[in-house]
Amino acid sequence: VFHVDWDLMTAEKAGFDHFMLKEIHEQPKAYRDTMRGRVSEDGKSVSLSELTTITPEELRKFNRVHIVACGTAMHAGMVGKTIIEQLARVPVETDVASEYRYRSPIITPETLVIVVSQSGETADTLAALREAKRNGARVLAITNVVGSSVAREADDVIITLAGPEIAVASTKAYTSQLIAFYLFGLHYAQVLDTKDEAFVSGVLAAMDSLPEQVEKILSQAEVIKKIAESISRHSNLFFIGRGLDYAVALEGSLKLKEISYIHSEAYAAGELKHGTLALIEEGIPVISLITQEDLQEKTLSNIKEVKARGADVFAIVNDGNEEEISKSVDSVFSIPRTLSLLTPALSVVPLQLLSYYASLALGHDVDKPRNLAKSVTVE
Amino acid sequence: VFHVDWDLMTAEKAGFDHFMLKEIHEQPKAYRDTMRGRVSEDGKSVSLSELTTITPEELRKFNRVHIVACGTAMHAGMVGKTIIEQLARVPVETDVASEYRYRSPIITPETLVIVVSQSGETADTLAALREAKRNGARVLAITNVVGSSVAREADDVIITLAGPEIAVASTKAYTSQLIAFYLFGLHYAQVLDTKDEAFVSGVLAAMDSLPEQVEKILSQAEVIKKIAESISRHSNLFFIGRGLDYAVALEGSLKLKEISYIHSEAYAAGELKHGTLALIEEGIPVISLITQEDLQEKTLSNIKEVKARGADVFAIVNDGNEEEISKSVDSVFSIPRTLSLLTPALSVVPLQLLSYYASLALGHDVDKPRNLAKSVTVE
Repeated sequence: VFHVDWDLMTAEKAGFDHFMLKEIHEQPKAYRDTMRGRVSEDGKSVSLSELTTITPEELRKFNRVHIVACGTAMHAGMVGKTIIEQLARVPVETDVASEYRYRSPIITPETLVIVVSQSGETADTLAALREAKRNGARVLAITNVVGSSVAREADDVIITLAGPEIAVASTKAYTSQLIAFYLFGLHYAQVLDTKDEAFVSGVLAAMDSLPEQVEKILSQAEVIKKIAESISRHSNLFFIGRGLDYAVALEGSLKLKEISYIHSEAYAAGELKHGTLALIEEGIPVISLITQEDLQEKTLSNIKEVKARGADVFAIVNDGNEEEISKSVDSVFSIPRTLSLLTPALSVVPLQLLSYYASLALGHDVDKPRNLAKSVTVE
Repeated sequence: VFHVDWDLMTAEKAGFDHFMLKEIHEQPKAYRDTMRGRVSEDGKSVSLSELTTITPEELRKFNRVHIVACGTAMHAGMVGKTIIEQLARVPVETDVASEYRYRSPIITPETLVIVVSQSGETADTLAALREAKRNGARVLAITNVVGSSVAREADDVIITLAGPEIAVASTKAYTSQLIAFYLFGLHYAQVLDTKDEAFVSGVLAAMDSLPEQVEKILSQAEVIKKIAESISRHSNLFFIGRGLDYAVALEGSLKLKEISYIHSEAYAAGELKHGTLALIEEGIPVISLITQEDLQEKTLSNIKEVKARGADVFAIVNDGNEEEISKSVDSVFSIPRTLSLLTPALSVVPLQLLSYYASLALGHDVDKPRNLAKSVTVE
């Protein structure tokens, strides 16, 4: 367990008003630190020397992957599912740890179980890890804390190098988990030979640009602040997206819940019309992620449905699409262009800022929201 | 598409104020009709003679099942996942149809894809079916409409015999889908020999009692009506549960959203403390399902967390547990005892009534909620 002496730590906010804001700004460094030493010098391949038990030979043996985690780490796992399925073409199932451990999941020695926990002490995740091992599965942990229980008990560990995260609402730990998933997915693809060197080096080059792209987003924080102040006047709102945008919508919604106490809920954009559309009325904010360009038309048609009921739509889009999408929504924020698969590492940043500024506007304790603990070591 | 002439249909409410209430009351009949002819005369085995393409030999070939649907049918699919995994021990993945069709899911000829759609015309579900077939998978449909597009294009069909469902909010179609999943799961277990005859006949005997047990729940509608009137005064609330109770919580929450427009959200009980607990404040209703007795202690410990923040907890429990659980919650409603696996076919009924009476108390149009269509034939 990571214990924090709040009085001592106050001095360490490095000029930021809150740990959360400091940690949001530390993400470019966390991306670089988590990648460092894991990419070959020529930038053409991933090398995860920490995988000593889960060797290439073992990796070829698995026919299924389970990703198990709680809360924000679970949302990183949902992105991880897409990464691994797209890159290595191995079927992946994600599960909430508190459900997984009790549902007698079908685990065999051909199952690779990946557990994700910032602290490495999350009680349900640790229990899921043990359940998986009891059933003969290999367990790979993605955690931020060397020597944590999860790190000690897993077969192998990819340590995220986000540095200590103090704010209860996780930001840089989440995005570092994404980086770990990208690296692992590429490694897995190399081993299974599902992607060639040109592809891998292309992704790695795009990953190299992410830190700088995050800086660019952070420099536009004032734009997000205005949107946040406007949504902070609402008690209910929705996040929508498709594909990876849906996974990020879930995380954006959770972030907002945690520190602003606004009841936001994330939906796969195509599911809205199967019931939840009934809740859309005049003025309700709908935050839409539209970074997956192959799904853009489909998401825009869902946006039309909520606009027709009077929703106030704020969209996160890719640079260059602002003008076109502006015609269909009320406000847009654009993020730098990257590969579709990598967008979560960028699109979540404006959502982190959105929740931060909404909480601030509402006068809440950003770093220590009511009712919540930083690491959940009880079931 | 199932077209309805509302004026003509008004005469057919059979004494009920709304189609929804009529359809809730038709569930015992729908259960019997969906089971009829699919159970051997001695009650010891399931016989699904409609499976002409997906023969026992084919069933033995599948190494994975995908269940794909939208909205309420998707929630039936989540129960279906547990049924198939527990009975046949084949790994099942559930997916929202609008996501599945675009995420290039890993589908092989060894994948059985089960699509679920009341109308058989749900656009995204139909598209998912076609995507699955294009990839060489076998497709089994569970639908309420003979001759619908989904029924025609699937390899095999299990027709639910719920009869026409007129209310937009699905009730008897959902529970009939559950019955279809129980029958298919038992059939699958017989074929794979994962459960013996004694087990199968035990489940079938318990299923035989379900219609009568639903009647008993319906006879206590007045109790639910009072709870509904009290929750109708709130604009936000949560449903929680673990395991099958979580799947039913999702459906209960959707039902309430659809016709009462209250923003309710369902959570796996163990996930609350990973963020959403921040939203729990004095007086907020939390509807808890506690029918899975092996998880009861764990759920009660989550209830303690919300009670400590002032939540008003209403629990659905098994007969005989009222007294003990009453000590930890504000109000309880008990359902007749059945096998753990079968509880969704009972526990959802009080939640259907809850949404019905909440909508009524709020003066909404129960059968035709704003913004929604009965069958969603657009993407």
